[in-house]
Amino acid sequence: MKICQVEKTLVSTNRIKDLGHRPLLVVREKVGGPRQVAVDAVGCVAGDWVICVGSSAAREAAGSKDYPSDLTIVGIIDHWSEG
Amino acid sequence: MKICQVEKTLVSTNRIKDLGHRPLLVVREKVGGPRQVAVDAVGCVAGDWVICVGSSAAREAAGSKDYPSDLTIVGIIDHWSEG
Amino acid sequence: MKICQVEKTLVSTNRIKDLGHRPLLVVREKVGGPRQVAVDAVGCVAGDWVICVGSSAAREAAGSKDYPSDLTIVGIIDHWSEG
Amino acid sequence: MKICQVEKTLVSTNRIKDLGHRPLLVVREKVGGPRQVAVDAVGCVAGDWVICVGSSAAREAAGSKDYPSDLTIVGIIDHWSEG
Amino acid sequence: MKICQVEKTLVSTNRIKDLGHRPLLVVREKVGGPRQVAVDAVGCVAGDWVICVGSSAAREAAGSKDYPSDLTIVGIIDHWSEG
Repeated sequence: MKICQVEKTLVSTNRIKDLGHRPLLVVREKVGGPRQVAVDAVGCVAGDWVICVGSSAAREAAGSKDYPSDLTIVGIIDHWSEG
Repeated sequence: MKICQVEKTLVSTNRIKDLGHRPLLVVREKVGGPRQVAVDAVGCVAGDWVICVGSSAAREAAGSKDYPSDLTIVGIIDHWSEG
Repeated sequence: MKICQVEKTLVSTNRIKDLGHRPLLVVREKVGGPRQVAVDAVGCVAGDWVICVGSSAAREAAGSKDYPSDLTIVGIIDHWSEG
Repeated sequence: MKICQVEKTLVSTNRIKDLGHRPLLVVREKVGGPRQVAVDAVGCVAGDWVICVGSSAAREAAGSKDYPSDLTIVGIIDHWSEG
Repeated sequence: MKICQVEKTLVSTNRIKDLGHRPLLVVREKVGGPRQVAVDAVGCVAGDWVICVGSSAAREAAGSKDYPSDLTIVGIIDHWSEG
């Protein structure tokens, strides 16, 4: 799983129905690194360091075997300092 | 999921039957970055910033469990500025 | 999906039975880039620019859910210029 | 599979129920490289060099087809020197 | 699929039961590149250039749908020169 920091919520009005109303968050593996989008399954706020699961595991972690996610936040890290 | 910008439509006359007539779009994660091909499931135009899902989730997002995609556009981002 | 150029056929006499007699082609995403091996599902020749699908989608694209491929050529691009 | 060194245990109190109480470890492919999180299926200690499996195989390796892991430690290497 | 060279056998006494007694080999995509571990399904020796399949295809290629591999050697290349 990847260790990422939550940056902000992503707004996408025009999206496929299967995404539902799950929050989509912009995350980065490190400050200044490329941004990715993750589905939030735990309830994060900006600044949180989180554990993101990918591959087919991202789907059930987001709620069901059919959910169209390839990156889902599955835990908030208690204490993390980048480095 | 990746954040990509749509560049143009890709024309491939000689393709496997399973791809059907779904539009194939050339996308890039950033200006000047490598190009990839994504199946359009939402209806994009060139210049749109979009959310692309990969892994096995790309298949159902493109319409069915058997669709041969590993990258499918699942949403258009309302406002995005690269950086 | 990746955009690759076909370089040549790969000869592998000693291979697992499940690969069958499908042609295996050496492809590159760009001139001088690293080589990969893709299963040809469309009928390519050296020099063609093609669309390669990965992940679990590569399997059915190669002919069946059980085929051991993680990269399969699913279409030939009509016109492509690298850059 | 990747060859990684175990750095430490990761504490994540707020996590999805499906992760259960399996230990989550911080691992790195090389000294100074980026950190990833792996589920421990063998019983490692900090400093061990281990074999990590990814993709869908990480799930059953962690205990069940439904476990939300994309990286699971499946073996401890008897002798390893980085280089 | 990746093109890799076999470096040596990897010894891991403490491993999960599901790995069984299949040989685990250390492979590299190029001289000096990072090492990975692959399950040998064809019978290789050090120095061989081989075809490695990843993703979910690695599992059945290693013997069964449930085998915990994400990289399996599926063929030996007849003639290969790196470059």
